[in-house]
Amino acid sequence: MKTTEITILKKPELNNPIFIEGLPGVGYIGRNVAGYLIDTLEAEKFAELYSFHFPPVAMLDSDKNGKMSALKNEFYFYKAKNKNEKDIIILIGDAQSMDPIGHYEITKEIIDFIKEYKPEMVITIGGFATGKLDNKTKTVFGAAVKDEIIATFEKKGIKFKDTNIGQIIGASGLLVLEAEKNKIDAICLMGETSGMLLSDPKATESVLEFITKYLNLKIDMSKIEEKVKETGDVIKKIESLQKKMTLQNMPKQSTNDEHLGYIG
Amino acid sequence: MKTTEITILKKPELNNPIFIEGLPGVGYIGRNVAGYLIDTLEAEKFAELYSFHFPPVAMLDSDKNGKMSALKNEFYFYKAKNKNEKDIIILIGDAQSMDPIGHYEITKEIIDFIKEYKPEMVITIGGFATGKLDNKTKTVFGAAVKDEIIATFEKKGIKFKDTNIGQIIGASGLLVLEAEKNKIDAICLMGETSGMLLSDPKATESVLEFITKYLNLKIDMSKIEEKVKETGDVIKKIESLQKKMTLQNMPKQSTNDEHLGYIG
Amino acid sequence: MKTTEITILKKPELNNPIFIEGLPGVGYIGRNVAGYLIDTLEAEKFAELYSFHFPPVAMLDSDKNGKMSALKNEFYFYKAKNKNEKDIIILIGDAQSMDPIGHYEITKEIIDFIKEYKPEMVITIGGFATGKLDNKTKTVFGAAVKDEIIATFEKKGIKFKDTNIGQIIGASGLLVLEAEKNKIDAICLMGETSGMLLSDPKATESVLEFITKYLNLKIDMSKIEEKVKETGDVIKKIESLQKKMTLQNMPKQSTNDEHLGYIG
Amino acid sequence: MKTTEITILKKPELNNPIFIEGLPGVGYIGRNVAGYLIDTLEAEKFAELYSFHFPPVAMLDSDKNGKMSALKNEFYFYKAKNKNEKDIIILIGDAQSMDPIGHYEITKEIIDFIKEYKPEMVITIGGFATGKLDNKTKTVFGAAVKDEIIATFEKKGIKFKDTNIGQIIGASGLLVLEAEKNKIDAICLMGETSGMLLSDPKATESVLEFITKYLNLKIDMSKIEEKVKETGDVIKKIESLQKKMTLQNMPKQSTNDEHLGYIG
Repeated sequence: MKTTEITILKKPELNNPIFIEGLPGVGYIGRNVAGYLIDTLEAEKFAELYSFHFPPVAMLDSDKNGKMSALKNEFYFYKAKNKNEKDIIILIGDAQSMDPIGHYEITKEIIDFIKEYKPEMVITIGGFATGKLDNKTKTVFGAAVKDEIIATFEKKGIKFKDTNIGQIIGASGLLVLEAEKNKIDAICLMGETSGMLLSDPKATESVLEFITKYLNLKIDMSKIEEKVKETGDVIKKIESLQKKMTLQNMPKQSTNDEHLGYIG
Repeated sequence: MKTTEITILKKPELNNPIFIEGLPGVGYIGRNVAGYLIDTLEAEKFAELYSFHFPPVAMLDSDKNGKMSALKNEFYFYKAKNKNEKDIIILIGDAQSMDPIGHYEITKEIIDFIKEYKPEMVITIGGFATGKLDNKTKTVFGAAVKDEIIATFEKKGIKFKDTNIGQIIGASGLLVLEAEKNKIDAICLMGETSGMLLSDPKATESVLEFITKYLNLKIDMSKIEEKVKETGDVIKKIESLQKKMTLQNMPKQSTNDEHLGYIG
Repeated sequence: MKTTEITILKKPELNNPIFIEGLPGVGYIGRNVAGYLIDTLEAEKFAELYSFHFPPVAMLDSDKNGKMSALKNEFYFYKAKNKNEKDIIILIGDAQSMDPIGHYEITKEIIDFIKEYKPEMVITIGGFATGKLDNKTKTVFGAAVKDEIIATFEKKGIKFKDTNIGQIIGASGLLVLEAEKNKIDAICLMGETSGMLLSDPKATESVLEFITKYLNLKIDMSKIEEKVKETGDVIKKIESLQKKMTLQNMPKQSTNDEHLGYIG
Repeated sequence: MKTTEITILKKPELNNPIFIEGLPGVGYIGRNVAGYLIDTLEAEKFAELYSFHFPPVAMLDSDKNGKMSALKNEFYFYKAKNKNEKDIIILIGDAQSMDPIGHYEITKEIIDFIKEYKPEMVITIGGFATGKLDNKTKTVFGAAVKDEIIATFEKKGIKFKDTNIGQIIGASGLLVLEAEKNKIDAICLMGETSGMLLSDPKATESVLEFITKYLNLKIDMSKIEEKVKETGDVIKKIESLQKKMTLQNMPKQSTNDEHLGYIG
């Protein structure tokens, strides 16, 4: 029995798209970035991923009317509107694997699926928790396997130093590794966040600004705060599930260990 | 090696039956409803489900004579006696999966099995714990994927609001989701219960009343309390196993989190 | 990749043998009974079972000379010496599964393997902990699926009542259930033990007395205490592994729950 | 889906090589020995092992420039430079399995892979923690399945007694057992270490001295301390991951149990 399955709703024709991952993680920056892009670009859903490794629950709508839905990850696409833009695949979702093995399995399924579309680049989005609450502009940190990619993105303003991060846990890291194993260029972008906010509009904005510039997209950025607020309830629920799963099945971050860091 | 297996004892011919699930959960409402229906309707067992994901134990009879049995889920059927009634499949059992992956696997096996019978509707039964002990008539709450089903059952008296439930854990939720994935209409009914009673006759009665009316069944409801008492010992044992399994392998409900709820 | 494997060393011809299981459990009664039978009957090893579900360790000899061996379960056979005796298969081992799923898997592999020999009866041996240390003769309790077997063994002196046991965890219970699913008669015998002794010679003797009588075996019983002592070191090591595995991966017995019992 | 995979980079022709394993373990003696051999012998990498059973993380370089890599085990080879030397395969890595089942699976994959090269001998390297910090020369302890191997290595100075070790957890033990199942001679060497140093240069030196003598290698031993220091950061990160994985998923060593010991 297949424990992770992708249901294809539509087969768009895409031209070496950029793949952007925004699954739940620290500060829900990836998820908020992905959500904002999907909304403002009016991206269209074309596939759903279900996994036995997600928490075994049915989610209920926060408007409390008894509407139920399955935990899933969703693939959206956006077709370039002009020659400056690029085709995009966006992955958004309510859950990551509850157990270590599932992380590897789901990662492999995702890369196997998107590589059919010959993506030009895989961009995963996480958060980097600093422990400091302030209102300064948030840096976007990067991590990648290939030196050329580090060099290219450093020139574009991504910071590759001074994070003291030892490891990236879950999808954001594994998707980059699996992409590179499949000869697809890949980078993980991490929005600087306090780690004390459930979801961080400022950090979301910093990452969105970088990504829209990178993708030559002209989108209205004024509704970020509003949108981030709107998704608050969903994120609260995901966070609760996520926390439980992290506590029970995942390697934990020892809090005073300077050389190791948790990034979703 | 197949880790969940259904042993077929008989192949009844059924006419778009209603499927009712009553596995162990909060307040044992589903199990008590299923048990009462099986007894009073004299439903006949036609299949058994065994799973490596159940606790690895042999159960001993509560009458203490050394009689042993395997944990299993059991499928019963009832053939309509007149044209007002409907054919019914009832699923009852001693256990749910001990681990998250097993929940998904068992759910899939159950729906794959019953869909051969082209069920008209899947009804799963859980409990909704309010934390208040009183003697008032108990509401029956509902949750479903499709708006039409919510509308239909709302008209019939099922309440779809004000539960503050964020998620339904285990079979009751997953069976509805898997049924809908297979284009089978499905609803989860939850009896309001204090959550302090191991098994709740009043809540059982509320759900039974709804279901018998929905199914146009005329059954003697006077023995509910007696029957619920009779099954007390079995439920005590299941509860103990269930508790252990919940504590060890399942996402936990944080107690003061208003937006999330555990429903068996 | 097969996660449980049986290596066959020899294919004895056996005539409807009696199968006796003595894997590690409460009081190590099964293991001591199996070990004593193997020694005194000079039974011959004919197969070994290895499983990924055993603890991932290499055991070192207690005589401390750096000799290492794998955790395994071992099948021995004994050919009847006269027409009063019966052919016997004895299963002894250092480990049970560390996780619930492995218990079901190993059980299935064992029954699939021995059923080729058309066993007349499966006898599993466990311990029943009373919590009382005394020197009285120890009762042998029984549990079985079929009423006829309970009746037969009750006449032979096995006690089927007053145990207050709710469940049997692990191989002793599951092997009986799986045997019966395969239409092989089966019983679980449990030696009464305090539960405070790591291994209990008196309880071992009670079970051995019953089994040798049942099998019409004439064996020297005078060395039980000595043998039980001899195996003390091995059992200490198994106990330590077993304890860890029980603590981490198995449903636990709540200590003041009258209706539930742990039997290895 | 294959959960452990070996990617072959090159197929060297080797003449009954000696296989040396140096995965993370107590005192990181194996890993430091393997690392030192690879560096000084300029051994060449020819294969990589990836597993879903490793922690689901991407490691970041300790020089903090955002360079990311996958957890893996790596196979190196060294071709004998003269007829006194032997061909060697060295296995080094950042991780062992996070769960018990993965340990068995990875072990099997490793032995299946190297047995194609018809190795003359499998040598695994672990540490034996004494709990005493001192500057004395460190003994090298041994453990093996076959008496002849114990006898041979005892003559060469390996100590096979007085360790009070009850079990060897993980790769060092399982690889020896799996090698012997495949009729390959095998031994586990354990450097005596305090257990209080994250990585122990003195113990590394003792094991290296033995191994270079055994392999007739002339190598510069003067840089051990320096090299051990150099790998400090990497080992710190591995240790953190390893600790978490040990705490969560592995049988634990009860601290005052004289007869049982943990060796990585």
